[in-house]
Amino acid sequence: MRVLVLGGDGYLGWPTSMHFAARGHEVMAVDNYLRRRIAQETGSEPLFPTPNLQDRATFYRQAGGRSIEVRIGDCADYRFLARVFADFKPDVAIHYAEQPSAPYSMIAYDEAWLTLHNNLTATFNVIWATMEHAPDCHIVKLGTMGEYGTPNIDIEEGWIDIEHKGRKDRFLFPRAAGSLYHTTKVLDTDLLWFYVRVHGLRVTDLMQGPVYGLSTPESDRDGRLLPNFHYDDIFGTVVNRFLVQAVAGVPLTVYGKGGQTRGYLNLLDTLQCIELAASSPAQRGELRIFNQFTETFTVNQLAEHVQIAGRAMHLAVTVQNLANPRKEREEHYYNPAHKGLAELGLEPHPMTTGILTAMLGQVIAHRDRIDARKILPRVRWS
Amino acid sequence: MRVLVLGGDGYLGWPTSMHFAARGHEVMAVDNYLRRRIAQETGSEPLFPTPNLQDRATFYRQAGGRSIEVRIGDCADYRFLARVFADFKPDVAIHYAEQPSAPYSMIAYDEAWLTLHNNLTATFNVIWATMEHAPDCHIVKLGTMGEYGTPNIDIEEGWIDIEHKGRKDRFLFPRAAGSLYHTTKVLDTDLLWFYVRVHGLRVTDLMQGPVYGLSTPESDRDGRLLPNFHYDDIFGTVVNRFLVQAVAGVPLTVYGKGGQTRGYLNLLDTLQCIELAASSPAQRGELRIFNQFTETFTVNQLAEHVQIAGRAMHLAVTVQNLANPRKEREEHYYNPAHKGLAELGLEPHPMTTGILTAMLGQVIAHRDRIDARKILPRVRWS
Repeated sequence: MRVLVLGGDGYLGWPTSMHFAARGHEVMAVDNYLRRRIAQETGSEPLFPTPNLQDRATFYRQAGGRSIEVRIGDCADYRFLARVFADFKPDVAIHYAEQPSAPYSMIAYDEAWLTLHNNLTATFNVIWATMEHAPDCHIVKLGTMGEYGTPNIDIEEGWIDIEHKGRKDRFLFPRAAGSLYHTTKVLDTDLLWFYVRVHGLRVTDLMQGPVYGLSTPESDRDGRLLPNFHYDDIFGTVVNRFLVQAVAGVPLTVYGKGGQTRGYLNLLDTLQCIELAASSPAQRGELRIFNQFTETFTVNQLAEHVQIAGRAMHLAVTVQNLANPRKEREEHYYNPAHKGLAELGLEPHPMTTGILTAMLGQVIAHRDRIDARKILPRVRWS
Repeated sequence: MRVLVLGGDGYLGWPTSMHFAARGHEVMAVDNYLRRRIAQETGSEPLFPTPNLQDRATFYRQAGGRSIEVRIGDCADYRFLARVFADFKPDVAIHYAEQPSAPYSMIAYDEAWLTLHNNLTATFNVIWATMEHAPDCHIVKLGTMGEYGTPNIDIEEGWIDIEHKGRKDRFLFPRAAGSLYHTTKVLDTDLLWFYVRVHGLRVTDLMQGPVYGLSTPESDRDGRLLPNFHYDDIFGTVVNRFLVQAVAGVPLTVYGKGGQTRGYLNLLDTLQCIELAASSPAQRGELRIFNQFTETFTVNQLAEHVQIAGRAMHLAVTVQNLANPRKEREEHYYNPAHKGLAELGLEPHPMTTGILTAMLGQVIAHRDRIDARKILPRVRWS
């Protein structure tokens, strides 16, 4: 397959690029370093520096990996993206090219506008570049479980059959996201669904939960091939923040009551899911949606997991409840379906103490670089 | 009230500006002439020219009307719009400032991008200008019945209670629009709903059907105060096209089977609805949605209405079925609720033969200006 990875420099984009290259596919990775720029501007640099994308591709080859073609440019620039599609003629376009931080999108007007403009325009351009230059290309779009919010009914996989006053129809599952970033992914889904209906695109929209993990067979070849590890309040997920707090000897900061439940998955499982989706493409005119996570945890449960792993590493880990900077339910019903990817063959890697202690080990190796000022919330939702 | 009309030069914006001014409210009308520019670029000029917005305000005062303040500028430019809100401090912002043509949005990349960018950014800017400069301002947003598409269940007013596997919640009614233009209004609703939830805005989102009519008490003071009358395939509604075809002596062009059913309303009823919504604002943190139409017709029924009115004017009116340039169901279930505005006091003006013959009379007065090349579909959905 000719695999185009948009956002190829990202936490998921880079391991995805190596994963497909290792399996013999022709891979092109595209990025404009937007996340690197924002991380620098907001003082949210990762725990350890990662080489730029060109260098990563070089180091990967030097470590015995296969060739990954790199293009640096902006997916929100249609002339650039159209040329990428026209030149590379992808069979599958894996679209990660979005501003991925919820707190960043909630800072103020400029950050919100950048997020809306960048994410919508990138998705719009992927749609049009596909229609104009690779009409049979399968778009694999990374959405988020956050699109659904926390409704009081079971969350189905993207769609819901509604019976209303004696009549029936099938609709996109209702969405109500908790940040502007998550809302841009709702808009992406609406946009994709429109062009799927009218122009017969083939699209898989993956509603993914927060991903954790650093180790993959490819990234383990050379320390310089590791994914980005952000632990700050802007780009860091709750798992990364907790791991770094455990190593730094500061309390794990639970926002509010800590009953917020989400679906999580290991980086290895993201790679499996993307490969499974790419290997059995959606039909023309189909918007196929999968919920992409393997386990649900409350924030309190995550804190407990990290405490147990910390104890195994002889770290004294305490927990502190902070006033919640976000506007979200801290106790809620949460029962999302996630059968589709399992049916395609996903074999989950659950969050074991072993996986967490391995990650703690990687953090300990860089403990002198931890900047405790980055961890506490700097952005409030109001 | 201090009434801000965004898109004040439009078919609805200008009569709305006069309507509120006539009732003693302070009115500011804002426009950037985008629709005039697109109409010129696509050869879609209205049947008769209308003066620019500054001149219209002047002629209105000369005809005994009250003062309407005019600002020319782009709502998608936040510095401009923020200054408008900071200076005028509106109590209500009536937001018509969007590219309103479905066929235009389906021409090609550039037209689609302009529609997406203009409509989303204008709505985003209205939200932020309200939050930053007039937080108690009531946003009255013009949505469209087209957001819902043609589902196989009854269309409720914006919201639906869903019972699913024994649990219940209330959601935005599912949306699946038939053009990119209509889809941008779906995205607008998603965006407004997000900021209502998180920042407690007060918003009324009016899901309006196609509007017909030229005559209002204020526009009747002087021919130069008439609203724009577009009859082409880009900006003209089906009613206007049929009226012009009847006068031109060419067959009424019914797309496909003509079973497409929509909710319509008279311009006088739009003015009533906007005034009713503005007079009883939504609460803080409320996204109030009304379906704004008074009657439903199939395209075939409209053609029949126009034939009857034509006969009364001694016009020989025939009908011709064209291959449908749009992708839409030509026979479908359609039962949308529209109780909310009636409960607020709306007194509908149904589509009578008298109203259609009056419109035919206005078209006849400009029959030498009819350009038959403008009427046939120039844009196809695929």
